[in-house]
Amino acid sequence: MRRIQVIGIGAGDPEQLTLQAVRALRGADVFFVLDKGEIKADLTGLRRDLLDTHVPDRTYRIVEASDPERDRTAVGAAYAPAVGDWRSARAGIYERLIGEELGEDETGAFLVWGDPSLYDSTLGILEEVLERGSVAFEYDVVPGVSSVSALAARHRTALNRVARPVQITTGRRLAEGFPEGVDDVVVMLDAHQAFRRYAHEDIDIYWGAYVGTPDEILVSGPIAEAAPRIERLRAEARERKGWIMDTYLLRRRSRD
Amino acid sequence: MRRIQVIGIGAGDPEQLTLQAVRALRGADVFFVLDKGEIKADLTGLRRDLLDTHVPDRTYRIVEASDPERDRTAVGAAYAPAVGDWRSARAGIYERLIGEELGEDETGAFLVWGDPSLYDSTLGILEEVLERGSVAFEYDVVPGVSSVSALAARHRTALNRVARPVQITTGRRLAEGFPEGVDDVVVMLDAHQAFRRYAHEDIDIYWGAYVGTPDEILVSGPIAEAAPRIERLRAEARERKGWIMDTYLLRRRSRD
Repeated sequence: MRRIQVIGIGAGDPEQLTLQAVRALRGADVFFVLDKGEIKADLTGLRRDLLDTHVPDRTYRIVEASDPERDRTAVGAAYAPAVGDWRSARAGIYERLIGEELGEDETGAFLVWGDPSLYDSTLGILEEVLERGSVAFEYDVVPGVSSVSALAARHRTALNRVARPVQITTGRRLAEGFPEGVDDVVVMLDAHQAFRRYAHEDIDIYWGAYVGTPDEILVSGPIAEAAPRIERLRAEARERKGWIMDTYLLRRRSRD
Repeated sequence: MRRIQVIGIGAGDPEQLTLQAVRALRGADVFFVLDKGEIKADLTGLRRDLLDTHVPDRTYRIVEASDPERDRTAVGAAYAPAVGDWRSARAGIYERLIGEELGEDETGAFLVWGDPSLYDSTLGILEEVLERGSVAFEYDVVPGVSSVSALAARHRTALNRVARPVQITTGRRLAEGFPEGVDDVVVMLDAHQAFRRYAHEDIDIYWGAYVGTPDEILVSGPIAEAAPRIERLRAEARERKGWIMDTYLLRRRSRD
């Protein structure tokens, strides 16, 4: 039976790899890498460094494929269907990779930044491949340090306050309104800096980009003061590197 | 200057330790361990195993102290103040430990299950110690694989659905009502099985106890079928081991 390992490799710091992930890297025959366009060079480089460090005898193959185009113009109600189409296209690619590039008794691996359970499509796509029924495999998930945990650690803050909830959401959602029933909100996938909408509220922001890498940038403080600084740093970094990976926590100050 | 490392050591599987955490373990002069009463034996054993494995030359001291009593009868509006009192009592203990047991140029470490940013009091307590001003130190946080990530990995599911939020909350909150605006909810610290209240709703549960350890128990499925099974298994395990550490994800089925 073919085996697949979905391996969380941490948020960017190569030392955030777990011992379980190292063992999984060493046990893989094939690594599947999908080209993510502009951010490819840096991130593929980081992945290769991980493999060079932890599997120095290079007992593996790397199989690359191109990521399907995604309709990034879809907004509102069209967003989830557009993501669905993209996932199905990706499932077709995974199906072919696993069927054609992985031997019957081999183990293939997908490396996922952060933790595979947060805003990553790999698990959903593998389920879709299995449902199609043309290729059989078993799969396991190796959890990783999420970009959320990495952000909180660098800011030395907890995500939640005592006995209170925290919500993890997307920039798209935050642009529609501050989530109900929570005062602590982690925002991922925010290409449009939705936090700016809340710049005049009594909120602290804990922001980080490229967390855990040599390019790391951290800003925290009252959002009114921090927002313009983040905007500027974010634009500069994006210009310099060609891509950005950032996350933040919004914390509404207690009224008591 | 004294240094403190707050080290996330993963959710129970010793292989979930990161390379950064291993390095931090090796760099510590003193480990501070607070006795948690009934769950002490097992968890202290696991921690000692980690140290034996990763710091075999035993270049450290272990300093133990008793956890202050916490008023576990406080409910409702009295809950957060009761936790506050307990944290202040703990801050007093930490202050004494750091001041008396850690040399001026030494590094002390607190080992935290899962990730220090989720429902753990260590960071808040260290801030309180610094505010008191009687002992100075620098501190860093080493993020870990959270029990939430570990649970999701074992169930091979994502926490969020495409473009949708996920909330992390407590059993106490869930008992008051299902959170607004989310259909995916992770529940921690639930001593009273608040999920039972939702057993007749169109919800799937992904439950796990002692995740990542040899005692691991996993149950998933429609909550109506799973809830009685979880109740039984949970009672049996609690009886057998004397303590339980469990977490779950509730996922309301889509109406589309």
